[in-house]
Formats: sequence, structure tokens, C-alpha cells
Amino acid sequence: MKDILDNKNKEIKCLDLGFVKIVDCMPRLIPYTEDSADFAIAEAARCSYQRGTKKISNDRGLIRHLMRSCHTSPFEQIEFKFHMKMPIFVARQLIRHRSANVNELSGRFSEMPDEYFLPPLDDIRIQSEKNKQGSDGNFDINNSENILNSIHLSSENSFNLYKEFLYLNMTREQARIVLPLNTYTEWYWKIDLHNLLHFLSLRCDEHSQKETREYAEAILELISPIVPITIEAWEDYDRLRGGISLTKLEIEAIKNSLSGQNLQLFDIDSNNKREKEEWVEKAKKLGF
Amino acid sequence: MKDILDNKNKEIKCLDLGFVKIVDCMPRLIPYTEDSADFAIAEAARCSYQRGTKKISNDRGLIRHLMRSCHTSPFEQIEFKFHMKMPIFVARQLIRHRSANVNELSGRFSEMPDEYFLPPLDDIRIQSEKNKQGSDGNFDINNSENILNSIHLSSENSFNLYKEFLYLNMTREQARIVLPLNTYTEWYWKIDLHNLLHFLSLRCDEHSQKETREYAEAILELISPIVPITIEAWEDYDRLRGGISLTKLEIEAIKNSLSGQNLQLFDIDSNNKREKEEWVEKAKKLGF
Amino acid sequence: MKDILDNKNKEIKCLDLGFVKIVDCMPRLIPYTEDSADFAIAEAARCSYQRGTKKISNDRGLIRHLMRSCHTSPFEQIEFKFHMKMPIFVARQLIRHRSANVNELSGRFSEMPDEYFLPPLDDIRIQSEKNKQGSDGNFDINNSENILNSIHLSSENSFNLYKEFLYLNMTREQARIVLPLNTYTEWYWKIDLHNLLHFLSLRCDEHSQKETREYAEAILELISPIVPITIEAWEDYDRLRGGISLTKLEIEAIKNSLSGQNLQLFDIDSNNKREKEEWVEKAKKLGF
Amino acid sequence: MKDILDNKNKEIKCLDLGFVKIVDCMPRLIPYTEDSADFAIAEAARCSYQRGTKKISNDRGLIRHLMRSCHTSPFEQIEFKFHMKMPIFVARQLIRHRSANVNELSGRFSEMPDEYFLPPLDDIRIQSEKNKQGSDGNFDINNSENILNSIHLSSENSFNLYKEFLYLNMTREQARIVLPLNTYTEWYWKIDLHNLLHFLSLRCDEHSQKETREYAEAILELISPIVPITIEAWEDYDRLRGGISLTKLEIEAIKNSLSGQNLQLFDIDSNNKREKEEWVEKAKKLGF
Repeated sequence: MKDILDNKNKEIKCLDLGFVKIVDCMPRLIPYTEDSADFAIAEAARCSYQRGTKKISNDRGLIRHLMRSCHTSPFEQIEFKFHMKMPIFVARQLIRHRSANVNELSGRFSEMPDEYFLPPLDDIRIQSEKNKQGSDGNFDINNSENILNSIHLSSENSFNLYKEFLYLNMTREQARIVLPLNTYTEWYWKIDLHNLLHFLSLRCDEHSQKETREYAEAILELISPIVPITIEAWEDYDRLRGGISLTKLEIEAIKNSLSGQNLQLFDIDSNNKREKEEWVEKAKKLGF
Repeated sequence: MKDILDNKNKEIKCLDLGFVKIVDCMPRLIPYTEDSADFAIAEAARCSYQRGTKKISNDRGLIRHLMRSCHTSPFEQIEFKFHMKMPIFVARQLIRHRSANVNELSGRFSEMPDEYFLPPLDDIRIQSEKNKQGSDGNFDINNSENILNSIHLSSENSFNLYKEFLYLNMTREQARIVLPLNTYTEWYWKIDLHNLLHFLSLRCDEHSQKETREYAEAILELISPIVPITIEAWEDYDRLRGGISLTKLEIEAIKNSLSGQNLQLFDIDSNNKREKEEWVEKAKKLGF
Repeated sequence: MKDILDNKNKEIKCLDLGFVKIVDCMPRLIPYTEDSADFAIAEAARCSYQRGTKKISNDRGLIRHLMRSCHTSPFEQIEFKFHMKMPIFVARQLIRHRSANVNELSGRFSEMPDEYFLPPLDDIRIQSEKNKQGSDGNFDINNSENILNSIHLSSENSFNLYKEFLYLNMTREQARIVLPLNTYTEWYWKIDLHNLLHFLSLRCDEHSQKETREYAEAILELISPIVPITIEAWEDYDRLRGGISLTKLEIEAIKNSLSGQNLQLFDIDSNNKREKEEWVEKAKKLGF
Repeated sequence: MKDILDNKNKEIKCLDLGFVKIVDCMPRLIPYTEDSADFAIAEAARCSYQRGTKKISNDRGLIRHLMRSCHTSPFEQIEFKFHMKMPIFVARQLIRHRSANVNELSGRFSEMPDEYFLPPLDDIRIQSEKNKQGSDGNFDINNSENILNSIHLSSENSFNLYKEFLYLNMTREQARIVLPLNTYTEWYWKIDLHNLLHFLSLRCDEHSQKETREYAEAILELISPIVPITIEAWEDYDRLRGGISLTKLEIEAIKNSLSGQNLQLFDIDSNNKREKEEWVEKAKKLGF
């Protein structure tokens, strides 16, 4: 048996002061004959599917089939544990993934370290008009410097006040309420591979907040060499990665287009502007 | 306020002795101005999305957008409670949906009623060669009658033995071990709409066992008039309903086909037989 | 059928600007013959336990038995939905209860309202020496006024900066990172009664942060008239309410005390200071 | 680092043909300086509690404190994976513990192996009058032999019919419905330590069905040398192990007894027969 984490990158820095470390995984010890932890998925799946029937191809074929067919339970047999440090506004998004086991730094028990996130000067973003959750370019250097200075100053003021409160011997649980959302926190975060892939689909996506995406991408990078076959299948099939999902209306549009031998972009039968725009985007991806 | 269950069908018979009854739902009382319970989804979503921004269209547009974008949490704000009676082999499949709250008839506390499932004479199925989970036509009438009689006799024998054991005053918990998997059980089953839709996608699908599918379809029929806008969106968008999911390999195949102005069916770049077959099926649906 | 929420208090103010509103519950409509929603717990339990056996007393007896025996699943058949407004530092504690369904105001979609929590002048607490999570009295009026003014000013500065950022058209998702943890947020929060009681045990407890406890106590007050029999049983039996839990070491101490006819307080066999202190406290409750 | 599973018992036989095997655990590799996997609980807890405060004693003290105070999340950081083989009526009880990840042998995909549970001759139990879920002694040898023969014959008949159905090429999914509840199935079962302890409390208890208890006890035996400090704390504190829980009524009774210097057994203020009996039992344990 060998340690799957040997010779693997175990930590990635995120943002200015944050990180994702991989603390542990299951399986941790793998047979010398294996190259990755993917075998444990196939092993669990074979308990369900293999008995008394002929071998369903090799591990790769089986894992890809499980992924395509949404037979998700074997992926739950793999578990990852991370140590992460991130600003509270990022932690608040991650915590919504309720299947994870979490132990977070407690601001009641402990003094919060004097660490807060400052965006890089070249990533102070302008609000998008169209996309309420999105941005549309960055501020120019002057504006960016002003904004960054303001964030810096405001954060420093908040932390100074916090430390003053602690000096006065105010309860930690009350003193912390003046701390800003860019304050760094940290936690142990443990999750199975099925739920982690769901998390990665949503949080590596371009609609995810960029700061949070940085953590999702770090996790993806850390686990890719551990379960490479699974990640390859996920990249090929997931609707938010290499794949795509088509609605009934869009299928109709394609059929019309093809039957008319008219490969121009067809409209879909919807009076919803956003739904139409989504179709235009997908149609381009398909080569129409 | 009016009772959303008024004038609704509340019970559907399933198989020979089973049923699904809708016991309750949340919201149960809806404003006189509403036609369905869908409004409660939009109401919860607006708590997240609407504040300080312009109104995102009407409820229908909002619900369809949530469904397309996999913003699933507002659908969790709707809850359904069912009373169901089904054979144990069906219950064993349903119980795998872990987000449901369940109270099942206990064979330790109570005597199991003398009721077991017998398949209809015209639905004794022949094992499919290709699909391990599937069937390929039915037996002829003679074979079917013989099989059905055997099931009947075997079930009766098992129940007679069970009742003899109880008569001898054997513990119920041990006596029941001779009962067959077609024994009827019943339960209260409560689940939120998001998880219920996931259940319905999988269990209304043609790959689901037919006997279980009958329960899923009964549930779909019961809830459709209660949340019609949600069900319409789900039928339009879900990959196992009206929609479809395309893999990276399939998108490539479509692009090649279109760019070559060759509308013949293109191969996908996979040496996996099953993956190729799945593509053929999808290509047909798209009109290639 | 009658509406269980009729003539019930549906909203309680919490802290300075927060609230808990009960939006809905299941069951919402109850038979005219019932006084509360407790019957639905007994109804579900009887599906498990009652069949073919004599009636297990009345609903109250059954519910109390279920509670004493930790037969928790029937309590999951009751569901509550709340609309809550609370500071982010409170929301961060509540969100750890992962079984709830949540739709929270999004600071990416929406501008955060200019509302923040200020503690009352007579509740600015001094850090306890012994209890890292606790307090030990309040500051005098002068100190309290100074602290409160500082919190006020700091919060105002943060919100002014936030609004300036929005005015410059900075992305909402980035601008919000300067907001403090006492910023008010709101959400829809839906949870079943079993998990809610677990939440109430922990969060109505004196070890819970006082600000969070105020929300837990408001919820308890709102649901008590809806499921009075369940709440009575919970108050009588729960180890963090009227009940108590004794460890093996404490049981040994009691036995020694009684056998020696020596009713003085006996030591427990532990070299852990905290464990001994806990026993002293429990022994007093028991009348030793 | 060393393999925590080295030199550990990894498999325990259960019932006549069943087993529990420990497949994996997290952490699997532990530092040479550690004796058990308990350290990973303390490590996660220290992420929450330790920062900026003095060290809370050693790992054992910390773990015992966490257990006493129901700070359960650090125990979720430990994970176990088992391969189990058990009769279906046992599997149906275990599956109710919804936090486990499960991959079960599928009777749709695979032919069910011809293996069924037969109770040992000296454990054919007589139904208890008082305890609906319990037994009251065993049958005499003659009755036991007769019953056992009947179970054997009935199981054999069912399996013969099943095999005949498969020979006729009936779908596996339908053929299996005649199989009895004592048919052996198997699965991979993965669960975190917090939820596993909750499972063990309920299923090692004397109220659990004896056949299921055998599996719970096997699991307890397998994990005890892996997390010995945690198991010791659990044995000392859990209300269904060495500990006890007292209700408000029972506390009142103890106080009355002690204040009157009357150490006779006092009644509790309840007209519920079962509640009174429970008190009598607890009072004996306490030495009254």
C-alpha cells in the first residue's frame, strides 16, 4: 500500500492571505497496483452491480458510466478533508453546502486574528447592468487605488476598535460584531466526492463570485491528481463543465432547424428574454 | 385564504392493493388571489433576490428562471406529506431517498397485515439481454399463469407460516423473517419539493422498476395541480423529462456535423459501446 | 377544519431591529375536534406502532412516551416556516443547523439595507475569566456609553463607505465586504419539529450567545401554543430543559453517597476540574 | 506515519452467514507519536476553540469535554467505511440511519446469492406480553426445532422458486419478490463517528432487535481500538451506555426523597404506568 497524498501538492494559496490545504482523504492508502483513488468508487459500485453478472468493463468505463447515468452513490464513498482560510463573506457562501462537516474558528472562544482580505488593485470590479450578480470590467487605476485605500482604512479601523474592546475586557462574542465581512476565518471542511463535485460545478462556474471561485478552483486542482478518472468524466459530462443541457424548447428549435435544412439560428418558442438569450449562447456552442 | 387541497384528487390506487394519499402540504392555505401553491416559491426567492432591485418579472418567469439556473433552495420551501402503501421491494427503493421523513409500519410492534403484491397477468416480464435492469416483453399467457400461480402460492405459504408462528406466540420481530419481499407495508412520507422533483426525475424514468414507477407517477399526478407552474418548468427543463443533456463528446459531434453541412449521424469520439448508443438515441431526439 | 394559526401571535420583535415571524406550519388546518397540531405526531406514530395492537393510551401519553424514548421520527412530521431578520453574527450561528431549508437575502443581488444591530446600553458585557464563551457582568454606564458610541460610529462609517462604493458603481458583491458583522440580514427558514427542538435545546441554553438566545426564545414562544403537548414533554424530559443527564461517574457518586447514608456531597472519580464542577452543580439540582 | 488498521481485527462474523468488515477509516495514517485516531478530533476542535486562548488540557480532557457538552461537530471529522453482509430485515433497520453513504447489492442488476439467515436453535424467542418489541424467554427444544425446520423449508422453497423464475428468464427485478426477509444482502456503508455513535447508542441498546444488535456490537468492537478515548468517553457519558437521563419529575422525586431523609423509593408525579416503571428502574440504578 502507498500513501496517495505522497508527492502531491497539498496546499494552494488563495486571495491575499487565504489557503486550501488537503488534510486527508479516504482512501488514503491505495494498493501499489493502483494509480489513483478512483478504484474505491468502482469497488463500491461493484458491490451493487457486479455480482453474478459479467464484469462491466474496467474501472474507467464503469466510472464514466456511473457519472453519465447519475448513479451518484459510489462517489459518496470517497471523502476529502480540507483546512481552509478564507474571508467571512466567502465562508458564508461555502457554508450553504450543507452536506459538509465543519469546524470553524469560533469568535466566541478565540480572539479573531488581525487579518482581512484586500482585493488586488487590478480587480476592483464595476457592477454589471445586466447581471445583478456580475461585473462588467474594472475601475481605472485612480479609482481602484482610492477604493482599495478606503477598504484598507475601514478594515484597519474596525480591527483597531475590536482590539480596543478586547483590551477593555469586553466579551469576545460582542466585541467581534464590529469586524467586517472581509475578516479571515478558517475551518476544517470534510465532504464526500459526490457532494464536492456538485459544489465544484456551482462554484467553479463563471456565475460564482470570483473570490469564492478561487477556492473552488484550488480544491479542483488539489483533488484532480487523486481521482483523475472521475474528474475527467465530470469534465466531459457535467452540464456546467464540458457538457450542456438543452430544454424541451431548445430541442424543438434544433429539430426545426435541421428539418428545414436551415442552419441559421432559430428562435425558441418563449416570450422570455433571458431564456432566448440563453438559447443563443448554447446554439453558438453547438455550432449553429 | 382557501384550502389548496379542496377539490383536488387526494388518493391514487397503485398496483393491486397499494395507494398514494396526499395527507398535507405546505402551503396548505393560499390567498384567494392565487391559483396554486407556486407563489410560496417565488415569495421565498424574492427574500433572496428581489430587495432593492427591480421586480424580476412575474412568478412564472421567476420560477422558470430558478429551475433553469438550478437555484434549488426556493423549491425546498414547499413540503408534501403522503400516506403510502406499497410492497417492501418498492419501499426499499424509495427509502434510498434520504431527505424524506418517514414513519413506517413496524413489524416488531405490529402484526403485518396479510397482504402481498401479485403482478397483473399481462405484466410478467422477460429479462432483457442488454439491460440488466430492464425487461424485454412479457411471457405468453400460459407461462404467465404458471408464474403468477407460483407467486400466489408461495406468498400464501409464507403468510400461513407467519401466522402459525404468531399463533405459537413467537416474537413478531423473528416471525416476520419468513415474509416475502412482496409483502405490503405502509408509511407516512414527507419531503420538500426540490428533493421530490429529484426523486420524480429518477423514478418516473423508464429505467426505474415499473412497479416503483407507478408510485412516482401517482405522486406526480397528485402534486401537478398544486404546483402547476413548477411542474411545467420541470417538464420543460429537466434532463430526464423534456430536456436532454449533451456531453462534451456529443457537442463536438454536433459541431462537426454542422460545420461539414453533413447532417448524417456523426460518431462520437469514444470507444465505449454504451456511450455511442446513448449518443445515437439522443441524436435521433434532436432530429439528426 | 380550522386554521391553527388563527388567534395566535405570529411575530415577535428581537433585538433592536430584528424579528421572528411564523409564516406557515404543517399541519396548518386541523380538525375542529383538535386543540393543537400535536395530533399529527400521534397520527404518524400510529402508522408505525399501532396496527393490530391495542391503542397506546391517548395522544398525550403517546407523545410523552415518544419523547422519553427518543423515538424522534414522528416529530419530523411537523414542519415550521419562519421569516427572520437578524444580524449576520447571529445568522452565522443559526446556519450551522444544517437540516433547515434557507433562503437568505443575497448581498450579491441586492443592496443591503442600512440597518445594523446596536446592543442595549445596559447589556454591554464583560468577558468571563472562567468561561471563554461567557460574560461576567456588565460595564458601568460610562464605559458602556463609550463602547456603544464606538459601535454606532464604526457601523455608520462602514455603511457610508458601502453606499459610496455603490454610488461609484462598484459590484455589490465586492462593496459589501466592508460591512460589519452586526449588519442585519433576513431569511426564510423552514425546519421540522424534531430538528427544531434540538436547535432550541442548544440555543435557548444559557451557554448560547445572548443575542442568538433571543431568537431561539422567540421561536419557542411562537410554537408553544401550536404544539403544547410536545413542548410540555420536551420541558419535562430534555437534558437541557427540566431534565438532567448523569454520567457513569456521577451515578457511582450517588450510589456511594446513598449506601453510606452520607448525604454530603461526594466527589466523583475524576481528576478533571471542569468535570468535578459540573457534578457539583448537578448535585445541587438533585438536592444533595 | 503508520497505518492505524495495522494489527487490528478487521472482520467480525455476525449471525450465521453475515459479517462486518472495516474497509477504511479517516484518518488512516497517523503520526508515529500517536496511539489512536482520536487526535484528529482534537485537531479539528482546536481549529474552533484553541486560537488565542490557553491550551485546553490534553487530547483526552478535550475529547471528554466535547462529549459531555454535546459539541458534536469534531466527531464528524472521523469517518469509517464498512463492508457488511446481513439479512434484509436487518438492513431495513440500518438504512433508517440516513446520514450513512450506502452502496447495496442490487437485486435488479444481480442474481441474489442463495443465502438466508436461520436463527440458532437456542434463540427462537417467545413474544413478550409487556414489551411489544421484546421477547420473554425461548421456546423449548422441540418447538424450536419445529420452528427452525419450518423457516429452513420455507426459505428453501422461496429460493427454489426464485431460481426457477430466473431459469425461465423472468426479470430479476420481478423474480426476487418471492424472496424472504431473511435473504442476505450486502453493502458498503460509510458514516462519520458522530452519527455512528448515535447509531451505536440506539442499536447496541437492549431494546434493539437482537439480530441487529449483533451488527452494532461488532462495529463497536472494531472501532474501539481505533478511537479508544472517544469510546471511553461515550461509555462514561451516553445516556444509553453508562450514563442516565433524569426527567424533571424524577429530579423532583429525588429531591423529595433526600429532603425527607427518606431514602425509600418515592413515587413520581405521573399517572402514566410506563413512566413510573421507568423511574423504578432508574432509581435502582442510582442506589435508592
